Amino acid sequence: MPTLGDFSETRLEKDPQQQQDTALSLACSGPGKAGRKRLQNSPVLFPSPLIYSSPASGDLMAQAHWHCYPWLALLCACAWSYSQPGYLGRQDVRNCSTNPPYLPITAVNTAMRLAALRQQMQAQNLPAYIIPDTDAHMSEYIGKHDERRAWISGFTGTAGIAVVTMQKAALWTDSRYWTQAERQMDCNWELHKEVSIYNIVTWIFAEVPVGGRVGFDPFLFSVDFWEDYEVQFQEANRYLVSIPTNLVDLAWGSERPPVPSQPIYALPKKFTGSTWQEKVSTIRSYMVNHTMAPTGLLLSALDETAWLFNLRSSDIPYNPFFYSYTLLTDSSIRLFVNKSRFSLETLQYLNTNCTTAMCVQLEDYDQVRDTVKAYASGNVTILLGLSYTTYGIYEVIPKEKIVSNNYSPVMLMKAVKNSKEQALLKASHVRDAVVVIKYLVWLEKNVPKGTVDEFSGAKYIDELRRKENFSSGPSFETISASGLNAALAHYSPTQELHRKLSSDEMYLVDSGGQYWDGTTDITRTVHWGTPTAFQKEAYTRVLMGSIDLFRLIFPAPTSGITMEAFARRALWQVGLNYGHGTGHGIGNFLCVHEWPVGFQYDNIAMAKGMFTSIEPGYYQDGEFGIRLEDVALVVEAKTKYSGTYLTFEVVSFVPYDRNLIDVSLLSPEHLQYLNKYYRTIRETIGPELLRRQLLEEFAWMERHTQPLSAIAPHSNSLTSILTLYHWGEPISGSHLWP
Amino acid sequence: MPTLGDFSETRLEKDPQQQQDTALSLACSGPGKAGRKRLQNSPVLFPSPLIYSSPASGDLMAQAHWHCYPWLALLCACAWSYSQPGYLGRQDVRNCSTNPPYLPITAVNTAMRLAALRQQMQAQNLPAYIIPDTDAHMSEYIGKHDERRAWISGFTGTAGIAVVTMQKAALWTDSRYWTQAERQMDCNWELHKEVSIYNIVTWIFAEVPVGGRVGFDPFLFSVDFWEDYEVQFQEANRYLVSIPTNLVDLAWGSERPPVPSQPIYALPKKFTGSTWQEKVSTIRSYMVNHTMAPTGLLLSALDETAWLFNLRSSDIPYNPFFYSYTLLTDSSIRLFVNKSRFSLETLQYLNTNCTTAMCVQLEDYDQVRDTVKAYASGNVTILLGLSYTTYGIYEVIPKEKIVSNNYSPVMLMKAVKNSKEQALLKASHVRDAVVVIKYLVWLEKNVPKGTVDEFSGAKYIDELRRKENFSSGPSFETISASGLNAALAHYSPTQELHRKLSSDEMYLVDSGGQYWDGTTDITRTVHWGTPTAFQKEAYTRVLMGSIDLFRLIFPAPTSGITMEAFARRALWQVGLNYGHGTGHGIGNFLCVHEWPVGFQYDNIAMAKGMFTSIEPGYYQDGEFGIRLEDVALVVEAKTKYSGTYLTFEVVSFVPYDRNLIDVSLLSPEHLQYLNKYYRTIRETIGPELLRRQLLEEFAWMERHTQPLSAIAPHSNSLTSILTLYHWGEPISGSHLWP
Repeated sequence: MPTLGDFSETRLEKDPQQQQDTALSLACSGPGKAGRKRLQNSPVLFPSPLIYSSPASGDLMAQAHWHCYPWLALLCACAWSYSQPGYLGRQDVRNCSTNPPYLPITAVNTAMRLAALRQQMQAQNLPAYIIPDTDAHMSEYIGKHDERRAWISGFTGTAGIAVVTMQKAALWTDSRYWTQAERQMDCNWELHKEVSIYNIVTWIFAEVPVGGRVGFDPFLFSVDFWEDYEVQFQEANRYLVSIPTNLVDLAWGSERPPVPSQPIYALPKKFTGSTWQEKVSTIRSYMVNHTMAPTGLLLSALDETAWLFNLRSSDIPYNPFFYSYTLLTDSSIRLFVNKSRFSLETLQYLNTNCTTAMCVQLEDYDQVRDTVKAYASGNVTILLGLSYTTYGIYEVIPKEKIVSNNYSPVMLMKAVKNSKEQALLKASHVRDAVVVIKYLVWLEKNVPKGTVDEFSGAKYIDELRRKENFSSGPSFETISASGLNAALAHYSPTQELHRKLSSDEMYLVDSGGQYWDGTTDITRTVHWGTPTAFQKEAYTRVLMGSIDLFRLIFPAPTSGITMEAFARRALWQVGLNYGHGTGHGIGNFLCVHEWPVGFQYDNIAMAKGMFTSIEPGYYQDGEFGIRLEDVALVVEAKTKYSGTYLTFEVVSFVPYDRNLIDVSLLSPEHLQYLNKYYRTIRETIGPELLRRQLLEEFAWMERHTQPLSAIAPHSNSLTSILTLYHWGEPISGSHLWP
Repeated sequence: MPTLGDFSETRLEKDPQQQQDTALSLACSGPGKAGRKRLQNSPVLFPSPLIYSSPASGDLMAQAHWHCYPWLALLCACAWSYSQPGYLGRQDVRNCSTNPPYLPITAVNTAMRLAALRQQMQAQNLPAYIIPDTDAHMSEYIGKHDERRAWISGFTGTAGIAVVTMQKAALWTDSRYWTQAERQMDCNWELHKEVSIYNIVTWIFAEVPVGGRVGFDPFLFSVDFWEDYEVQFQEANRYLVSIPTNLVDLAWGSERPPVPSQPIYALPKKFTGSTWQEKVSTIRSYMVNHTMAPTGLLLSALDETAWLFNLRSSDIPYNPFFYSYTLLTDSSIRLFVNKSRFSLETLQYLNTNCTTAMCVQLEDYDQVRDTVKAYASGNVTILLGLSYTTYGIYEVIPKEKIVSNNYSPVMLMKAVKNSKEQALLKASHVRDAVVVIKYLVWLEKNVPKGTVDEFSGAKYIDELRRKENFSSGPSFETISASGLNAALAHYSPTQELHRKLSSDEMYLVDSGGQYWDGTTDITRTVHWGTPTAFQKEAYTRVLMGSIDLFRLIFPAPTSGITMEAFARRALWQVGLNYGHGTGHGIGNFLCVHEWPVGFQYDNIAMAKGMFTSIEPGYYQDGEFGIRLEDVALVVEAKTKYSGTYLTFEVVSFVPYDRNLIDVSLLSPEHLQYLNKYYRTIRETIGPELLRRQLLEEFAWMERHTQPLSAIAPHSNSLTSILTLYHWGEPISGSHLWP
């Protein structure tokens, strides 16, 4: 699936004003809806609602995350006159301009919550407090106990920043969430629609006089995010005050959901590319050879620690991670985690009973700041990746002892899979292809009966995945969208709200699994009836884009952003496009959106051994949506002249819908690629289907991978060739052919 | 021609460490060798010597800028032990490790210069002083009187930063210039090869203790450049001290070349797109409607003021500019310039005899800082473009009164040509095409006689241009390169050092003109004999890349960096590439490299009305070089489905070399494009050649624009089509055709 950050025009505007306007963190988000936390740090543009979402999307997405609160009937104490002409007369959104204000049943009374928070602020002498939407690890998905902004404001959307003063409370969120915010927030809250840091601090400075203090939890600000604020605070003579104890948590009190405590387990050796000892040795060599020769490395992202030690758990939905930090030094390994979550066996696996260089010393998760501070007081230098490090750790290390990069070496090593990791990821994609083929066969039989809807379909494919070997559930909330719903960004059906599948509509399914050997993510779009010519053209052009990018040969290293337009050209040619990015990295039983690989502005360059999705699409608002997503391995390309060149090898093995392919649009190269792909599917998935005696699926697969042929040389190309003989005037007839 | 910044791999690495490593200003440079001053500000990678330059390039380029100084025999007082194993035994470079040191005849004795500078530093209590390579307007080319770093160090290369302390003197420059620096510098100077700001400040901090002061001329630091230094100085507890009077100038004294004083003239109305009054009104409307409603706008780039007032002069080689600033406010227009350079007529044209809103008040150039400071003391806000504003002006404006963007609105308006400006630029390209065709015809006749060399060729084409209507000389130093010389970055021949043109070698000519109606820039590569198959393939693939980019249809706005790979794909496909960018903006009798339009990382998105060069190439080190450069106008594209889509319209009208085109490699679409282009040349240039009775040139043009045809459908494509009928196994024979 596309990442949240991808839901934007990918065209680059380098105007810093614009960059600033996009600096608000969009990234903290619920399952299936978010791009990894990078948005706090990077100039990704906002989603383009014109292209990808529709007015209806807000409604549907809001419903999907609904909570009902008991005090709905209470009026808010602090009416706030906010004119909302677009909403006048509507019953589903609040109206704070009437007296008393009108609140829909979905609004949350935040009066007591705000009072409790303000009590904490008063105790700290803070006239204002900033509440972002992240966790302490800049995770893509956050746990329930980290949903502080949702709790204090009532607004459960995945992107938004709140600021509370002694008199006011304000929320900034982007256009996807405005309606949802108007439904969920009571009149204690102002809604602000210009989400730049500039707008947020301008509002704060109007409320907080010169010399005033504004509190924030340093564990919820990445270093870059903090710097963006700090610069503006300094210029305006206000003070950004780091308060390491979160004040919302204190206000939340015993109602706050507990921090996860289920066991943390070691992956069996057959599912890992290297032992943790090998990884530690490699990283230590890297540190020794680094020009700055850092003595220690701090890891803050949850998948860094999970990858390093080959450990997993399930603290975050769809993500097999556990809350942790690692401080790896030249002579010690410190793992910060809730110790009680390890079995004796895992403690032995980690070699925790000693203190030499290859022993893992366990320390309490909450101890990390103090330990790093103590370590940093010695004659040391600490390497860290700024993108995933929070100010909470950063501020305790003297600046001259920090060696910083955008990403830690672990993040970069993890991005390049070794041969065993490649084989594991491919194996998981073989089983996953069987799941998707089984699902498509089941749909083909059951949709015409009228017995399948988006929600039951999603449940069915999730079940199919759970039955697979080494399954650990879906890798994100399945996007199962029929007809016009497929044009909505990251739509997922619910038990209450869904659409029936029909042979008269296109259907899009974007789903993936977590398996012990790999994480998968694939999208197919199908039509069981008679698609319109436009649907076929759009589908075929999306497919052409995918093939054009898959076929590209490029020098190593090349950044994804410089090549992703190849996936768009066939659409652009006729005035069509899609409003999201073209792909993202993927992990070995790790993140389904594994940063920093991908095709966006701030991704790192493609290198051999990386995996990325390639997922062009087309979305016709109010009618249908198309996306074709395949996972690709970056491999060396053989070129006529020598040089290090790369290309993509597909590892997703599910046929495209022949019913939607207009062969006449395809070039000979497209057809050649497609037929080669069909052969690969037959060779890879055929034996697996037969081994499992899935004969119906085998027959379906064979049918859908019959070589495609251009019955005659396709007309476009023929015409083009013919016109060469004259001044661009097309000649009809074929008498010129030899 | 490609810009200096373009001579780099265009692949993006977002690692901030890498960005920092590239932050040294490369940009200050002599004619024909430089990218606009943006390199001070932006993360452009360093040139890739592997791809574009060769060891020989340093030698040749160094020779081109030679000065001979009378005190060559003097030994330097301060021998500095710098080991240079690569140079051991060579007579053309210095050797500071012997006693006495060895200095080549080309080295400059800087002892007295350094002593004079240190005297100034002592007077200001500065243990160190930084000398960049820029002027006060971040110009691409700088005047002789601004070549401070060259004067103090002896090193005349266009990229390099010097730092002088009371005991030491050090120069940082990149690999293109190392040999040149070893030839030109005496042993007073250390040469440093790691050119990041980090390396420069680390060296400074080793020389200047905590609390120490380091001086700099704030007019030679862009705001961004200053910020990069300031951050590191603050962290290290040293002080960067702004000294508005340049200390090198004081040391230079009466030997310093004078500031230009030739007349400044108004362009005739027929050569301008709008009157200056219209431009001023448009900008004032923009300011009123700006969300921050600035009261004033400061213009620092020389082409901003030249464009705004439709004024020109010739202060800088190849650039029709004059030293100036503009402060445009809601009620006044202040032009800072040497007043004595205006005629009475021009003073009237500017309406200088009044002080109302549409009168231009002239103030002395040196007055700008004081006047801006005085203006900024009022109830005002000032809009400015950070990329071209120096710290010298920036520091006198209170921060809360600054509204900053990367570029001023003038820079952005200038980038989009109105219909009259488009017509003017096109007209200049028609005359320029006649020049290039005349030159190619002349070469075709004279090269076989053996009477043409690179230098005489360059002189001849420059002469042809000078004879054209409205000519104001070349727009950069003509690159005239035969054989292996064409593989060198920005090679230009000299009277002393050049190569004879021959029918056995390829020849590359990259040249352009300044005309009152437009600036031109075009590159053609030709071979009069029998090119090798590899030369033909490389040339054809460069041409295919150009066509692929010209044919691209893309949504508005799209950034150039996301589409320039289309110009590379045909080369990449076989393992070839080029090591520079793909194109740059161009002005109406303004900059030949008109920033911020182009295909680089930090260019703005393409918009209707912009002009850009498209110039893929291929360089075979030690053998030959190919570049095909055409100027393109961004125009609306008609697409099947509605939407705002753009494409490129070519405005360079000179045929490519048919002798180098391998038709069998071209797709039907390539041939169709090429034949349409040929027709456009005939229709556009044909009448002009006939009007001038240039019958020989007309016949040559007709011959070189005969429609190309694929005698039979080309084999690659045919094979591809045939393979569709089978599992990718090629079938020979044509019996399958209908």
